[in-house]
Amino acid sequence: MWIEKDNRLVREFKFRNFVEAFGFMCQVAIVAEKMDHHPNWSNVYNTVKIELTTHDAGNIVTDKDRELAAAIDRLAD
Amino acid sequence: MWIEKDNRLVREFKFRNFVEAFGFMCQVAIVAEKMDHHPNWSNVYNTVKIELTTHDAGNIVTDKDRELAAAIDRLAD
Amino acid sequence: MWIEKDNRLVREFKFRNFVEAFGFMCQVAIVAEKMDHHPNWSNVYNTVKIELTTHDAGNIVTDKDRELAAAIDRLAD
Amino acid sequence: MWIEKDNRLVREFKFRNFVEAFGFMCQVAIVAEKMDHHPNWSNVYNTVKIELTTHDAGNIVTDKDRELAAAIDRLAD
Repeated sequence: MWIEKDNRLVREFKFRNFVEAFGFMCQVAIVAEKMDHHPNWSNVYNTVKIELTTHDAGNIVTDKDRELAAAIDRLAD
Repeated sequence: MWIEKDNRLVREFKFRNFVEAFGFMCQVAIVAEKMDHHPNWSNVYNTVKIELTTHDAGNIVTDKDRELAAAIDRLAD
Repeated sequence: MWIEKDNRLVREFKFRNFVEAFGFMCQVAIVAEKMDHHPNWSNVYNTVKIELTTHDAGNIVTDKDRELAAAIDRLAD
Repeated sequence: MWIEKDNRLVREFKFRNFVEAFGFMCQVAIVAEKMDHHPNWSNVYNTVKIELTTHDAGNIVTDKDRELAAAIDRLAD
């Protein structure tokens, strides 16, 4: 579930271990570059935290963020 | 299902698309490097073909191959 | 140097080790998906062999292959 | 250059673009998993910020952090 706060869409994903977490990040990276829209994201072991905001629109949440969020959700299923 | 032929363990994996196939490859790469045992592998779009053999043992199938095959199967589940 | 043979653009890249080879593959994967044009490629330890052909054009070399080849060369520099 | 502060080794890496930044992350991920020592790290476009601390030692900087830092530096060269 993405939460919108402080002009960002935020979601945290948990995996069984680092390998699965990074495999997911690899997929997100490919999808993000394809959409020309990149996350602010961080990883610690099995946890990936993703924050989406549109820099070019003045750091607010736009449809580009919602589209990337939806694409990321499809990867995580 | 891995098949042993010509002194190799061989298995082909199919995914929904390239992004999922490469996310899997990313995980396999991490696990293989950790085991210090690397696959002969190829990818075309959603298909990843992996061949395992132990170069240092004269290119035959050894326990190192069977262990990597088992680890890869756990990733693909 | 890419060589054109059998209706494919082919090039082999060598790296210092598996980690560098796979880091390169990760970059190629991102660029290929962005261009919606995917390589036939294989990896053994520090070697990455890439073959490019355009399936939709009847498996011949087209401008899509030449553009992806040029993009890959920029990554390998 | 790694800086030690607040019981962490911290370094920021800059790349030409997202693709190069993520290719670097892919290499770091492989090396970290092999050393069984994982970074706290974040990425925004071409920037990768890495923080290293040893959780099992009570979140202080140990030789495991220094070894991973050195390994990461070799990748970034």
